[in-house]
Amino acid sequence: MWIMNLRRHSEVSLARQIYQVLREQMTAGQLRPGELLPSTRELAKLLSVSRNTTYEAYEMLSAEGYIVSRQGSQTRVAAGLHLEKPAPALEDLRKAVQSAATYLADFRTGRPDLQRFPRTMWLQLLRKATENLSAMQWGYTGPEGLPVLREEIAAWLLRSRGLTVHSRDIFITAGATQALHLLAGLLAEEEREILVEDPCHVGMLQVLHGKGFKIRPVPVDNQGIQTEFLTGDRACAVYVTPSHQFPLGGILPAGRRADLIRFARNKDLYVIEDDYDSEFRYRGTPVAPLYSMDTQRVIYVGTFSKILFPALRIGYVVLPPELHKRWCRLRTYADVQNPPFEQAALAEYLHTRKLDRHIQQMRRLYGQRRQLLLQTLEVLFGRTWFPWGDAAGLHLVLEFPGMHFDHEFARRCKKCGIYVTPVDDHSICKGIHLDKLILGYGHLEPAEIKQGLLLLQEQFQKDSRN
Amino acid sequence: MWIMNLRRHSEVSLARQIYQVLREQMTAGQLRPGELLPSTRELAKLLSVSRNTTYEAYEMLSAEGYIVSRQGSQTRVAAGLHLEKPAPALEDLRKAVQSAATYLADFRTGRPDLQRFPRTMWLQLLRKATENLSAMQWGYTGPEGLPVLREEIAAWLLRSRGLTVHSRDIFITAGATQALHLLAGLLAEEEREILVEDPCHVGMLQVLHGKGFKIRPVPVDNQGIQTEFLTGDRACAVYVTPSHQFPLGGILPAGRRADLIRFARNKDLYVIEDDYDSEFRYRGTPVAPLYSMDTQRVIYVGTFSKILFPALRIGYVVLPPELHKRWCRLRTYADVQNPPFEQAALAEYLHTRKLDRHIQQMRRLYGQRRQLLLQTLEVLFGRTWFPWGDAAGLHLVLEFPGMHFDHEFARRCKKCGIYVTPVDDHSICKGIHLDKLILGYGHLEPAEIKQGLLLLQEQFQKDSRN
Repeated sequence: MWIMNLRRHSEVSLARQIYQVLREQMTAGQLRPGELLPSTRELAKLLSVSRNTTYEAYEMLSAEGYIVSRQGSQTRVAAGLHLEKPAPALEDLRKAVQSAATYLADFRTGRPDLQRFPRTMWLQLLRKATENLSAMQWGYTGPEGLPVLREEIAAWLLRSRGLTVHSRDIFITAGATQALHLLAGLLAEEEREILVEDPCHVGMLQVLHGKGFKIRPVPVDNQGIQTEFLTGDRACAVYVTPSHQFPLGGILPAGRRADLIRFARNKDLYVIEDDYDSEFRYRGTPVAPLYSMDTQRVIYVGTFSKILFPALRIGYVVLPPELHKRWCRLRTYADVQNPPFEQAALAEYLHTRKLDRHIQQMRRLYGQRRQLLLQTLEVLFGRTWFPWGDAAGLHLVLEFPGMHFDHEFARRCKKCGIYVTPVDDHSICKGIHLDKLILGYGHLEPAEIKQGLLLLQEQFQKDSRN
Repeated sequence: MWIMNLRRHSEVSLARQIYQVLREQMTAGQLRPGELLPSTRELAKLLSVSRNTTYEAYEMLSAEGYIVSRQGSQTRVAAGLHLEKPAPALEDLRKAVQSAATYLADFRTGRPDLQRFPRTMWLQLLRKATENLSAMQWGYTGPEGLPVLREEIAAWLLRSRGLTVHSRDIFITAGATQALHLLAGLLAEEEREILVEDPCHVGMLQVLHGKGFKIRPVPVDNQGIQTEFLTGDRACAVYVTPSHQFPLGGILPAGRRADLIRFARNKDLYVIEDDYDSEFRYRGTPVAPLYSMDTQRVIYVGTFSKILFPALRIGYVVLPPELHKRWCRLRTYADVQNPPFEQAALAEYLHTRKLDRHIQQMRRLYGQRRQLLLQTLEVLFGRTWFPWGDAAGLHLVLEFPGMHFDHEFARRCKKCGIYVTPVDDHSICKGIHLDKLILGYGHLEPAEIKQGLLLLQEQFQKDSRN
């Protein structure tokens, strides 16, 4: 019983190996309650290890209550240790988690071009900014985010969108998803609903859904949310994308914006404005946020995932003062704060106007890709389609009248290596937008766009033959 | 009406300034629906700006639906824009958010010594690790965390605690708080309870509370949770700190560990094991996690906030396979993932065994500080007190029989610049541990410990006089 198969060159110390073997025998019932153990000296001799080693093993067993030593050094197994072995793990479930396919034609949405991001320069900034952090800033710096970053975002919102925001109203988040996740927690009340655009980003719907919100869809046309359908005495918030409706692409006209604000005031509720990609407009300047019309009713959500890169995990939310305190509590009990390193680097990136220049460059690049996408579509698909929405963002919605794009279609495409998203995937009331497809293009090189559309054309032909 | 006060050297372009003034007039009702605007040429002349500028301003107004242009270039104000001004913001509420006092005697808990962390070396690692990230890794890398970090954590758990964990069962989180926040979402079921130690870290209680959990306290003695009080057919999880009970400091004995596992199996529920600081034991080696007794019933939560520094925001959770899929969904819809930079740096820190050496050094340092704290206490407070719990961690619990430490006491201390925490602050059933105080010492230099205790002694004397 006392002979063990010890691994002499293991990462695990000999003492711990002895401890583990003995512990195993006790919980398995091979060593029984009250049973006498050899002395550390005897065991050391039996195992050809030093007495220090066995002493350490016994110390561990004793500290954790596996053995009981009386004065005079008699050591016995403690009571109540026996445990049945657990059933074996469910191996097949592990596989379900895996998924990382690559596509021949990858029209996924919401992906910026990571190859064009000046990564080396960013790393230099990261280094510079982190060297300047004080030791205190390696501790807890607060749920609001680094002050310097909040100030730089305020300055940037002013120069890019003419938006006057005080930095104390800006709260840094781990991306727009977290902003919505926490806002849902902040605004949700039992038995009440959130009004959302239909269609609406399915990921965001999942966030709201996961927080137990009842969801009431409001239809969208080519200009955005149809405010005449805003109803509901049980609503506690409205979630909208007025600068560039996702996915249909409309810019919400001023009249509807005013409707929305009036509705929110009447019903005493908040409007969550998700401004996920309005930086990239290819005609004219970025659209003024709804927030500018009522800074106390509108909660503005922005993100740097699309402008810079998703792994940055920095977004922000502009909150009316009466929500500050509760927001800080919520953030603290969700994940405390963002790390300071990326925050400091981003502040420097904004301060030096590198962000402004990057946006300009990317806007030009994405604009060209959009142009190419439209031209190639015309060549390959003739006049069977037309585009929806404003010339903006990283994706395009196409209507093919008479066509039928459902989940099944997307699945068939995926099988052939094509990733496209039917608008219907983002619809709450299914079946209304079945003739529309979403193509994300921001991350695609010209050759990939052409190749992707060729494959899509093939798929269309295959489909029409069946 | 058409004369505006434009700022020529502003960050905001002239076009945007014109747009803002006109928009303001429309929503304020000074420009009425249907009213005729001057042509871009006329307005440019009036304002002494280029026609491009007025054209751009009109483009913005038109894109957002504030104005309507008919063919033949007549431009009119759109309908339905009028909005009352919002009420002024609640300034006083802003102040409530602020708070960042410094203390003469700062015995806060859970604070590692940030001055002793090798920050320069960490920044070098950060640089090296981030340079090696591929462009793809600047995009979305998945809710599980970077594979290399998960593998390094698995290897470290083996060599430091003899714990055999497969890396695919390890999921990176933004700290232990987020781990619990998400676990609460994962395990909570309506009308069911979570069993927690009483006392229990009040922050963690807030996390559970915020998720709508019903909380059922289980009493704790000097060995940890008293498993004979585990009851509840309505429980869906148990949250424990068996390696070093927070705050009382007990190591849960093997018999109670077995009880806990048996209880979990009987009731078909999970045990959440929060191992927040077991690296720092000043006698013997770290305690073996409960997880090793049943890898399918126990969910293990670890964090690097105390070992390295809180701003890192990296923790992890070891999950049984049947929870993987739901965990990934939850994480995705909470905040998607951690940034890759800190993850890559930490993986390198583990790989090069710098973590192991750092822990050794800090254990020695913290052990000395603990010694000094105990010695100084003896000098200043005589035999009026005794310490609770195992010689471990970054804080010490003292019992002063007959004393009365409540929230009011802590408030009086704070007024005099002393931060101490009564155990009662962490109690669910108040009044049981009123004679106990918690002193965090990890972050304090020897002089600060002595000075802090002197101040505390003064406070005791002041209190006894009143």
